[in-house]
Amino acid sequence: MSRVLKVGISLSLAATFLAGTQAGAQLADKKVLTLAAAKKMAAAAEAEAAKNNWRVVIAIVDDGGHLLYLQRTDETQIGSIDIAVGKAQTSVALKRPTKAVEDIIANGRNAFLGVKGVTPLQGGLPVMVDNKLVGAIGVSGVTSQQDEQIAKAGLEALVR
Amino acid sequence: MSRVLKVGISLSLAATFLAGTQAGAQLADKKVLTLAAAKKMAAAAEAEAAKNNWRVVIAIVDDGGHLLYLQRTDETQIGSIDIAVGKAQTSVALKRPTKAVEDIIANGRNAFLGVKGVTPLQGGLPVMVDNKLVGAIGVSGVTSQQDEQIAKAGLEALVR
Amino acid sequence: MSRVLKVGISLSLAATFLAGTQAGAQLADKKVLTLAAAKKMAAAAEAEAAKNNWRVVIAIVDDGGHLLYLQRTDETQIGSIDIAVGKAQTSVALKRPTKAVEDIIANGRNAFLGVKGVTPLQGGLPVMVDNKLVGAIGVSGVTSQQDEQIAKAGLEALVR
Amino acid sequence: MSRVLKVGISLSLAATFLAGTQAGAQLADKKVLTLAAAKKMAAAAEAEAAKNNWRVVIAIVDDGGHLLYLQRTDETQIGSIDIAVGKAQTSVALKRPTKAVEDIIANGRNAFLGVKGVTPLQGGLPVMVDNKLVGAIGVSGVTSQQDEQIAKAGLEALVR
Repeated sequence: MSRVLKVGISLSLAATFLAGTQAGAQLADKKVLTLAAAKKMAAAAEAEAAKNNWRVVIAIVDDGGHLLYLQRTDETQIGSIDIAVGKAQTSVALKRPTKAVEDIIANGRNAFLGVKGVTPLQGGLPVMVDNKLVGAIGVSGVTSQQDEQIAKAGLEALVR
Repeated sequence: MSRVLKVGISLSLAATFLAGTQAGAQLADKKVLTLAAAKKMAAAAEAEAAKNNWRVVIAIVDDGGHLLYLQRTDETQIGSIDIAVGKAQTSVALKRPTKAVEDIIANGRNAFLGVKGVTPLQGGLPVMVDNKLVGAIGVSGVTSQQDEQIAKAGLEALVR
Repeated sequence: MSRVLKVGISLSLAATFLAGTQAGAQLADKKVLTLAAAKKMAAAAEAEAAKNNWRVVIAIVDDGGHLLYLQRTDETQIGSIDIAVGKAQTSVALKRPTKAVEDIIANGRNAFLGVKGVTPLQGGLPVMVDNKLVGAIGVSGVTSQQDEQIAKAGLEALVR
Repeated sequence: MSRVLKVGISLSLAATFLAGTQAGAQLADKKVLTLAAAKKMAAAAEAEAAKNNWRVVIAIVDDGGHLLYLQRTDETQIGSIDIAVGKAQTSVALKRPTKAVEDIIANGRNAFLGVKGVTPLQGGLPVMVDNKLVGAIGVSGVTSQQDEQIAKAGLEALVR
C-alpha cells in the first residue's frame, strides 16, 4: 500500500489536499466490511432461514453501527425491522453477541435496562477480524436462539 | 501485515475464531483516526483559538460519527457543545465541510432543512486520508468563519 | 386468487382462526411488494448507479413505509442511509415522488418544513400498481436528480 | 476574589451592564470546574486505565451536566461514549455516585428504571467541593467496578 497519504479538506472548498507521510504514522489501519461481503453473509443467513421456513429480517451494519444491508422476508412481522437493526447495532456498540447483554439482565442486573440504545435480545453477533470489530449482523423474526442460529450462518459465510 | 485473518464470535460465546485468508479478500482496508492524532489536532485548534482569545468547543469524531475527543474552553456557551459535535457528525455523514451544506441552503434550497440530523453551519471539516474519510472536526463558539479557521488549524496539525 | 381467506389472532391468545368466506366478502384485496420484487428493483437500480460509478444507498419500503430492503455501496456517505429511507417513507406517506414535496418548498411554502417525518428531497418514488400504492423506493448519494434517475431504473424493473 | 461583579444581558438587547456591588450581595458564589482541571483529572484517569491496559471513554461534565471534556481510547467500544457521558450526567443530576443508583435497582426498586435520562451503572462520581457539586466524571469500557476505579483516580487528581 502506498506510504504517501493525503489529508485534505474536500469537495466544495478549494481542494487543499495535504500530502503527508507523517499523517500515516498517527493513524491506525483497519479492515472494512464491503457490500459484497454483506450480501454473501445475508445470502447464507437467508438460506439457513429458508431451510427452516423461518421469516426474518437480516440486518448487517458497519463498525460504526450504520446499515450496510437489510432484507425482510415476505410476511415477517414489521417489529422485527427495528429489532434486527438494534441487535446489530448493540453488537457493534458493546463489541459482543447480544446474548451476552441478555444474560447480564437475566442474571439479575436489571440496571442494564437503563442503558439507552441497547437491544438486549439474543440474535446479534459482532463480526471480528484479527480481533478487531468490522461490523455486526442482527436477525429477528423467530425465537432468539433461532435468530442467532441464522446470524451465525451469515457470519460463517464470510470465511468460506 | 499478517495475511492470516481471524473472523469470530467473541467474548461470552465460546470463542469460535475462524481463520481465513478468504475473509480478507472480501474486506477493504482503511486508515483509522487515533486518540493521539485527535489530541494533536485539538491542541493545534486550541492554540489557534487561544491566540485570538476565542472560547470554543472542539469536537473530533471517527468515520462513524462517534466522539473520539471533545474539549470546551472555560465560559464557552453550552449550546456550542451540541453544535460542535453536530458539525463534526454532519461532515462525516455528508463527507464534506459543513459550509457546503450551509451554502446549499443559502443558495435557496430550503428543502435541505428538512433533512434530520444535519447541523448546517460552517465550522465542520472532514478528515480525508488517501481520499477516504477517517473522521471529522467540528468547532463552535465564535463566528462560523472563525470556527472553521480553528477547525482548519486542527486539520493541518495532522500532517505536521 | 383463492377465495378462502383465513383471519387469525395468533400468538399469546388461543388460536381463534376464523374460516371465512364471509369475512372475505367484507375485506378488500391488495397487491403486496415481495422481497423478490424488491431485490429485482434494487439490482436494476444498482446497475444504473454502477454504470455511472455512483455510490448510493437504495432503500425499498412497503405500503406501511417499513423497510423491505436496503443496500449501501462501499464508501457511500453514511448520511445517505437515513435520507434514502426517509425519501422512500415520504413517498409512501404522501403517495407521490419526493420531488413534488421539494417543489412545494421551492415554490415558497416553507411551512411544509414543519411537517414531521418528511424528507423533502428528490429521489424517492412511490410504487403504484393499478393506481394503488404498494411501496416506494428511495435513493441517496449523488445529486437528487441522479438519485431519482436510479430510483426510476429500479421502478421500471418491476414491469419488465 | 474580586468584589466587583458584572452582570449583563448581552447580544440582541442593548447592553445593559449593571455594575454591581448591590447585585453581588444578592448572588451566591460557587466554584467552577475548569478545562485545565478537567484535563488534569482525565490524565490521571487515563494513566490508571493505561496501567491496566483498559480501553475506556472518560467524560467530565460541569454542574449543569454539560460536557467539558471527553476522550476515547483507541478501539474502545463505541457504546461506551453515551454510557460514560450518561454516568457523569446521572452523578450530576442526582448528586451521587451512580453506584448508589445501581444499588437502588439491585435492591429491587425496578421502578427507578422508569426515570428518564438516568444511566444507572457504577462508574460515575460527582465532583464535590466544599460540599457543593461542581461537576462529575463518568467512565465506561471495562467492568463497572473498574470504570469507577478509573473515575476515582481522576477525582483524586483534583486534590493533588
